[in-house]
Amino acid sequence: MRAVDIIVKKRDHQELTRQEIEFFVQGYTRGEIPDYQASAWAMAVLLNGMTPRETTDLTLAMAHSGEVLDLSGVVPIAVDKHSTGGVGDKTTLVIAPAIAACGLPVGKMSGRGLGFSGGTLDKLESIPGYRCNLSTAEFIEQLRTVGIVVTGQSADLAPADGKLYALRDVTGTVQALPLIASSVMSKKIAAGAQAILLDVKVGQGAFMKTLEDGRRLAELMVEIGRLAGRRVAALLSDMNQPLGRAVGNALELREALDTLRGKGPEDFREHCLVAAGHLLVLGGKAADEKQGYALVQKAIADDRAFDLFRTMVKAQGGDVRYLDEPDKLAHASLVEVVPAPRSGYLSGINAQVVGETAVLLGGGRAQKGDAIDYGVGLEILRKVGERVENGEPLFIVHANDAAKAAEARKLVLAAHTWSNEPVEPLPLFYGLIQ
Amino acid sequence: MRAVDIIVKKRDHQELTRQEIEFFVQGYTRGEIPDYQASAWAMAVLLNGMTPRETTDLTLAMAHSGEVLDLSGVVPIAVDKHSTGGVGDKTTLVIAPAIAACGLPVGKMSGRGLGFSGGTLDKLESIPGYRCNLSTAEFIEQLRTVGIVVTGQSADLAPADGKLYALRDVTGTVQALPLIASSVMSKKIAAGAQAILLDVKVGQGAFMKTLEDGRRLAELMVEIGRLAGRRVAALLSDMNQPLGRAVGNALELREALDTLRGKGPEDFREHCLVAAGHLLVLGGKAADEKQGYALVQKAIADDRAFDLFRTMVKAQGGDVRYLDEPDKLAHASLVEVVPAPRSGYLSGINAQVVGETAVLLGGGRAQKGDAIDYGVGLEILRKVGERVENGEPLFIVHANDAAKAAEARKLVLAAHTWSNEPVEPLPLFYGLIQ
Repeated sequence: MRAVDIIVKKRDHQELTRQEIEFFVQGYTRGEIPDYQASAWAMAVLLNGMTPRETTDLTLAMAHSGEVLDLSGVVPIAVDKHSTGGVGDKTTLVIAPAIAACGLPVGKMSGRGLGFSGGTLDKLESIPGYRCNLSTAEFIEQLRTVGIVVTGQSADLAPADGKLYALRDVTGTVQALPLIASSVMSKKIAAGAQAILLDVKVGQGAFMKTLEDGRRLAELMVEIGRLAGRRVAALLSDMNQPLGRAVGNALELREALDTLRGKGPEDFREHCLVAAGHLLVLGGKAADEKQGYALVQKAIADDRAFDLFRTMVKAQGGDVRYLDEPDKLAHASLVEVVPAPRSGYLSGINAQVVGETAVLLGGGRAQKGDAIDYGVGLEILRKVGERVENGEPLFIVHANDAAKAAEARKLVLAAHTWSNEPVEPLPLFYGLIQ
Repeated sequence: MRAVDIIVKKRDHQELTRQEIEFFVQGYTRGEIPDYQASAWAMAVLLNGMTPRETTDLTLAMAHSGEVLDLSGVVPIAVDKHSTGGVGDKTTLVIAPAIAACGLPVGKMSGRGLGFSGGTLDKLESIPGYRCNLSTAEFIEQLRTVGIVVTGQSADLAPADGKLYALRDVTGTVQALPLIASSVMSKKIAAGAQAILLDVKVGQGAFMKTLEDGRRLAELMVEIGRLAGRRVAALLSDMNQPLGRAVGNALELREALDTLRGKGPEDFREHCLVAAGHLLVLGGKAADEKQGYALVQKAIADDRAFDLFRTMVKAQGGDVRYLDEPDKLAHASLVEVVPAPRSGYLSGINAQVVGETAVLLGGGRAQKGDAIDYGVGLEILRKVGERVENGEPLFIVHANDAAKAAEARKLVLAAHTWSNEPVEPLPLFYGLIQ
C-alpha cells in the first residue's frame, strides 16, 4: 500500500477502505507518511467528502492511534459531553456535577480556549490551585472515588488527531465536516466514553454559522457513534447571542457557581437542565428527558450538585474558599456599566464580537501559550427580543486597562443591534439529533 | 499575505490575484512556504481549477523563480518545440536540425525518459562522448556559432517548477491541467523561447489519454502563450500506436539518422515534416505550413539537415564516426524477429505496453538515476489498419537477457490486437490549435 495511491483514490471521489484509512492514519502518526501527503489528502477529503462509514473508520483509527481508556471496570457506564465551542459556554461547570450528583459518574477531558470561544480548563484554573494536568492513573482514581473529574486531555490520547489538527490549521483544511467530526469523536472514544451528548452550537458565535451546517455535523457525529457502537445524541443549540450573561473566566465561574446554587441567568440554567437531563437518559439514569430534567433540578435544589463540584475542586488541589466566597475570585480593576444608547427592541448581540472583545481584554489567547487575565470580561445584561429603554444598563465591561476598556465598550455597543418593532426572542435549542 | 489564506481562497473556488500567486511561488521556492502547504494548495488547484489568467501568472512566476535566458541578442527569434512525451517519439532529433538547416536557429533543453516514455537526452547519449550538461554560457555560445544545440535543462531554470513537480509526483497532484500546462510553459519561457510549437500527444501511449483532455491542455497552453506574449501553436498528434518503428535509444537514433538521410518510416518522416513546417511558420521562415513543409523536405533531401546534426554532435563532444556508420552504435546481443500469430487486420498496438516493455528490457528507467542499456528495445514493424498474414514478421525484440526477451515477446504480442474486418488506419494528427 502506498500513501500516494490513497490520496489519488480520494482525489478521484472513490471510497477508501478501512485498511487504507488505518494505513494512512498509522503511517502519519508514526511519521512514515509526511505532512505534505497528509495535507494533500486532507484537502481532497475537504473537497470530495467522505461517507459516514469512511468517517467512522477514520475516527476509530485516530482513537486507536494512541492509548484508549477502558473505564468499564471503573464506572457502570462512561458518559461524556462535548460542546463545539461558543461564547459564554460554561455549561460543563454545571452539567458535570449535576449529573454526577444524580449518580452518573463523569470523567471529562476538556480543552483550553483558542480564538473567540473560551475553554473549560481556563475557567477552572481561575480557582487558585486547581490542577488540570492529572495523569491517567489520577484521572481514573478520582473518577472511581469521587465520581467526577475534569482535567486536560492527555497527550497520549488520539495523537493522530493532535498532529492532524495542527496540520489542518495551517493548510486551510479545518472546515472539512468528516475531519471535524472524526476529530471530536476520536478524542471522546479514546477517553473511554460509551455514551456521549454533543452540544452543537450554531450561529454567529459558533464554528458552524448556519443551522444547516450544524445539523449536518450533528447528524454525522451521531451516525459515527451508531456505527462505532456508542450511544450518542446531539443538541443543536443557539449561539447567535452569548449563553448566560458572563463572558470571561472568573466571571463565568461565578455564574456557574450561582447556577449550581439554584440562581444564575435563566437561559443558561435552562440550557444546563435540558442538556444534563439528556445525559441522564443516555446514561440510563432517567427514562426520558423530562424525568432527567426533574432529577437534575432536584440535585441542584438540594445543593448536591454544588457540593460535588466543591469536592472535585478540592480533590484536584483547588482552594475551595474561593467557591464558598466567589467574591474572592479574580476581579478586574475597572468595572464600567454601559447604558443603552437608545430605546428599542434588541434584534441581535453578535456573540463572536463579544467573544473577541473578551480576548482583547486579556481573557483569552491570541496565540497558543499566551497568559490569561482571569478577572476581565463582559457581562451581557439583556437578551435578543427584550425591550430596553435608553439609559438602562446594557452590559458591563471588566478590564484592567483603560484603553482596552474604551475599545471594548465601543465594540460591544456595536455588537448590539436594534429594532423599533418587537423582535422574537431566540430559541435555546433548534432540535435534538439521535 | 499568508500562505494559508491563499490555500483557503483556492479551496473556496476563488480566483487568485497575480500578487498572491507570485507570493506563493516565491515563498515556496525560497523554502518559506513548506511542502505541506504547497501540496494542499496543489490539491485545491487540481480539484477546483484555475482560470487561464491565473495559470499564466503561475507560469510566469515559476519561469521567473530562477534565471530567465534572454536570447534576443543571440538569435533573431528563439524558437522551441516541446512534446508531451510518447513512445518512439524521436522527433527532436530530426526536427531540430531540419529547421536549423532552414535558417531558424534552435537551442533546445530536453529531458530524460521516465516511466514508459523515452527522453531525447538518453537517445543522444547513445552517441559515445555526447555531452548533455552544457553550461548556460556554452549553450548560448553554441547557439550563436553553430545555430543548433540540444542539451539538458539547467537547474537554474524555473527551480519552482522542479521543486513543485517533485512534490506533485508524491501527492497525487500531477494530473492537474493548470499545473501540467504551467510546468511545460514555465520551462520554455525560462529557456528564452519566443515561439513555441507544442506536440500534444493523445492516446493510450500518452499522458493525455483522450483527445478531449489533449485538446484542453493544448488550448490552455496556447492561451498561456498568448497572454504571456509568446507565439505558440499546438499539434494534437496520435499516440495510440508507437511513432515510427523503433522504440529504444540507439534504435531510435538510427531511425532518426535514416530519416535525416531521406529514408525512415513513412509515419515518422511525415510527422517530422509537418511539425518542422509549422515551426518555420512560427519562426517567420515560411509563409504557411505548406511552404514550411517544402523547405524542410528540401533541407533533408540535400543533406543539410544531416550535416547540421553532425556538426552539433561534434560541437557537443560526440564521436561522429557513429553517425557515419550507425551500425557501430550499441547493439543488443539477442535479436529476435517475432512472426504474426495469425492473419488479419491490426486493430491496435498498445503504445504504453510497448514503452513499458522497452523499459523492462533495460532501455528506460524504473527510478530516477537508473542506468540505461542503449542497445535494447523493440522494432514495431506494422501499423494499425494494415493487413498482416500469419507468420509475417510483426516486431523485433532487441535484448541482452533471454528471460527478458521472452517476457518482452509475450507482452508485445499481447499489445497487438486483431480484427477479421478491415480497420481504418490511425491519423497522424487530430488538429492544430493556435
